[in-house]
Amino acid sequence: MPSHRYLPVHERVPLPSSSRTWPARRIERAPLWVPVDLRDGNQALAEPMDTARKRRLFDLQVAMGYKEIEVGYPSASQTDFDFVRHLAERDDLPEDVTVSVFTAARADLIDRTAEAVQGLPRVLIHLYTATAPVWRDVVLGRSRAELHRLVLDAAGHLLRRVGDRPGVRFEFSPEVFNLTEPDYVLEVCDSVTELWDASPDRPVVHNLPATVEVATPNVYADQIEYADRHLARRDSVILSVHPHNDRGTGVACAELAVLAGAQRVEGCLFGNGERTGNVDLVTLALNLHAQGVDPMVDLSDIDTVREVVEHCNRLPVHPRHPYAGDLVHTAFSGTHQDAIAKGLAHHAKQAAELGVPPEQAPWAVPYLPIDPGDIGRTYEEVIRINSQSGKGGIAHLLHAHRGLELPPALRPELARAVQRVTDATGRELTREELWELFRATYVVPGLEGRVTVAPWSTAEVSPGVHRFTCRLRVDGVEHSVEGIGNGPLSALTDALRGIGVTVDVLDYREHSVGGSDGHAAAYARCEVDGAPWWGCGWDTSVLTASVNAVVAAVNRAKEV
Amino acid sequence: MPSHRYLPVHERVPLPSSSRTWPARRIERAPLWVPVDLRDGNQALAEPMDTARKRRLFDLQVAMGYKEIEVGYPSASQTDFDFVRHLAERDDLPEDVTVSVFTAARADLIDRTAEAVQGLPRVLIHLYTATAPVWRDVVLGRSRAELHRLVLDAAGHLLRRVGDRPGVRFEFSPEVFNLTEPDYVLEVCDSVTELWDASPDRPVVHNLPATVEVATPNVYADQIEYADRHLARRDSVILSVHPHNDRGTGVACAELAVLAGAQRVEGCLFGNGERTGNVDLVTLALNLHAQGVDPMVDLSDIDTVREVVEHCNRLPVHPRHPYAGDLVHTAFSGTHQDAIAKGLAHHAKQAAELGVPPEQAPWAVPYLPIDPGDIGRTYEEVIRINSQSGKGGIAHLLHAHRGLELPPALRPELARAVQRVTDATGRELTREELWELFRATYVVPGLEGRVTVAPWSTAEVSPGVHRFTCRLRVDGVEHSVEGIGNGPLSALTDALRGIGVTVDVLDYREHSVGGSDGHAAAYARCEVDGAPWWGCGWDTSVLTASVNAVVAAVNRAKEV
Repeated sequence: MPSHRYLPVHERVPLPSSSRTWPARRIERAPLWVPVDLRDGNQALAEPMDTARKRRLFDLQVAMGYKEIEVGYPSASQTDFDFVRHLAERDDLPEDVTVSVFTAARADLIDRTAEAVQGLPRVLIHLYTATAPVWRDVVLGRSRAELHRLVLDAAGHLLRRVGDRPGVRFEFSPEVFNLTEPDYVLEVCDSVTELWDASPDRPVVHNLPATVEVATPNVYADQIEYADRHLARRDSVILSVHPHNDRGTGVACAELAVLAGAQRVEGCLFGNGERTGNVDLVTLALNLHAQGVDPMVDLSDIDTVREVVEHCNRLPVHPRHPYAGDLVHTAFSGTHQDAIAKGLAHHAKQAAELGVPPEQAPWAVPYLPIDPGDIGRTYEEVIRINSQSGKGGIAHLLHAHRGLELPPALRPELARAVQRVTDATGRELTREELWELFRATYVVPGLEGRVTVAPWSTAEVSPGVHRFTCRLRVDGVEHSVEGIGNGPLSALTDALRGIGVTVDVLDYREHSVGGSDGHAAAYARCEVDGAPWWGCGWDTSVLTASVNAVVAAVNRAKEV
Repeated sequence: MPSHRYLPVHERVPLPSSSRTWPARRIERAPLWVPVDLRDGNQALAEPMDTARKRRLFDLQVAMGYKEIEVGYPSASQTDFDFVRHLAERDDLPEDVTVSVFTAARADLIDRTAEAVQGLPRVLIHLYTATAPVWRDVVLGRSRAELHRLVLDAAGHLLRRVGDRPGVRFEFSPEVFNLTEPDYVLEVCDSVTELWDASPDRPVVHNLPATVEVATPNVYADQIEYADRHLARRDSVILSVHPHNDRGTGVACAELAVLAGAQRVEGCLFGNGERTGNVDLVTLALNLHAQGVDPMVDLSDIDTVREVVEHCNRLPVHPRHPYAGDLVHTAFSGTHQDAIAKGLAHHAKQAAELGVPPEQAPWAVPYLPIDPGDIGRTYEEVIRINSQSGKGGIAHLLHAHRGLELPPALRPELARAVQRVTDATGRELTREELWELFRATYVVPGLEGRVTVAPWSTAEVSPGVHRFTCRLRVDGVEHSVEGIGNGPLSALTDALRGIGVTVDVLDYREHSVGGSDGHAAAYARCEVDGAPWWGCGWDTSVLTASVNAVVAAVNRAKEV
């Protein structure tokens, strides 16, 4: 690879190790989130949103609780202009929501922007200019001083044009901040702060974008901490970041920037945006949630959020996308399934001990960073079965979906049976298929096979003495037999012995299964002709289930 | 959101700010990459790979230049066992490639693993145990001391079983390292180092996984720096990391860990793996490349890599996936397109000045972190046109695909024409559609319209004096006319004036277009009846193109 073509382009800011504070901090509250899906995200779509899609996404963002929403670049696109007018004219904006619009630093575009936002009660006008050296030299053909003049001319024009309107605030972005000389950023931003006469009551937003990611995220964090310390009139400045994701570190850049002093984060839902996208606001919010910090946005129904965003962007959310992907709460591997099953059981017990509903109890389940229920997901997708799965996950699934409480000693054997199937087919086993496999292996042999028992009756003929009477069919030959024992099952085995079938019940358990059909499950481990075999019964009667379980063990032994 | 359910679970390691070094460092060489797609990644697939798929992915990884490859968990799955045997028996492993296999810390599984790897010339046996408190308490039911004993028993068994085989090395993973008490990690790892008698010649790998991401990436970096400083026999230990991506910060964790002293990184191609996946080794490698560090793996044909991985995993690579997604080298927005077009032109010029081919010249093109050509992509996808696009991108595309060198003064007008179409349809314009739109707007009016000129001839009748003779059809009425001027075009406009069409050529340029069909393009800005109009000509003859360009301007004016 011709890596020699690239230079580590970033200058490190002058931030000595002794004074750097962000690596030791912790995020303790949510920053102000600003979704820019309708502007930055929209500019990156092969098919930009129409007004109906824009409105749907805007309404979603308002409903989720976002308080500042960038809605378009009205001087650059008629659709955007129309949408801003639509918002201004509908006059149904919640009182705590501010709309933001984007404009380049040119007088005619600023005029058109001013026209677009006329009548909006609360508006942030976002002025940007590229300030990085390559952009100055190659794209704009201006020196530092010339570009600075251009910014001040535009900022002044904007102030004269709309500065006296109530509810208007300003934002400035020195684009490709992360490639711009730190002293130039301060020079330009500070002069804009002064020109706009920012005050704590009417602060200016300085938004410092990582327009293109160019270095490890610690470099951006240093740049933000440096800006945090050196920007003039700091209490009149809202320090904002706008990370992109070219290096796959947008989320990290945003988080480290917040540690370093950023108060506001611009991004998109699920990370739409130019090229690799803007930073993902959903992941950022749920990362805070997962560490006990209120994200200040509502993601309790993540699938609806995802559906709207997928509709508007016409782009999918990847199956492994943090929190929202189809596979991210799922474990296939045996070790993970076992741990999750134990963790979920432990969680339920803890909640009961605390006397709170499980969905309110403290969460610490292995391999699940958050409770899928918090974002409207169910546990159904958590454990899925294929050749990588193990006994814990299989037992958990049969418990969750069929109410079975498989004896621990039965589980390894069942897991091997499952693995034989999944290894052979290479496919996932659905939970219905898992149940069918269990039934075919352990239950059906109690109903059909070389030995069948029907009809039968049992009676306690004197205290502690039980009699079992039945018609037994063995390899097509019928016998009327009877046995005696200290319970129905020992009487049954006694009856079987009578026709030469030697069976001892080594281990036996049964339980009822809730639900409308009121079944019972029975599990019998029997020594048959000298070897141990499991059989199971599943019936509305506990007694029938137990009889069938023993017969199942017998038939399994006889069919080898 | 019930965020109160979650506690920031991580203990910060005792690393005072004054001694922390990683935030000031820079990555200067690639770590040892270890793809674990065939084990960790495979365990997370709904349909795990069959042997054919495993072999295809393994061969790809060898061809890309990976030197250590984890190939399976042979004691847990027959498919994995068979695949390890397949590799051992084929005996075609390159001499610099080591195969790694994974095993839990249990004697029977270790025995089965030893059986699987018999005959492999170079093998790393990777022993793991979960060590974090929740796992110890809820999953394993063991105290710190009991679990430590279990690890040493297993490590000892492994040593006795295969320690004397040549080419065998060992790896240990204290799973969920990032949730394990730092002193316990050191206690367990150091005793394993000692038991295995690691030396600089035969180092042990200690792999410290962020099995589930639980904190901002700086916390993991601190944990790694702490381990780097405190692990015993440090020169006999290869410090490895294995980040997952639950918080979307896997790439950042790996990079900060390398800054903090990690020498080896386990991950998957494009980030497959349990839940949100393992860290993406492709992104990590190209991040180094983009900063001038040789990634030590070959990604010069990224689409083939992607195709194989998508086939084997049966999972897509997202359109916005760093470096490899379909959209990540694409710009739709006008500002970006303009900058990229200027940047590419500047790049070509720079390369020519340096006397090197463009693909070898230093790269600094706005909005493109790397040259798409480095990874086998073309420029065709870089600029695409929709309603968000602008004059720069449009001019670039018509230049790149049709050889047009549009006069700058014509570009804004053409951009408005394009935007009218894209705003109305909401769709992207293909480059063929863009060319057709240009032709229909500026070229076709020179061939058909209210005024047509054919046949015509022109002659230089005396030095500097040109005559233009033609049959002119105006609104269906034919005229035979003639004009005189200092060139063919001024003679043509003179002829037009003769029948009452007042036209002045304000600006004119023409150029030939390379390629087999050898066309010429002509652009004429003419004042017609007092207003300025652009017209263009496209013909194999420069002269015909220029005549048609003037007639096009006339007809455009007449058709208003």
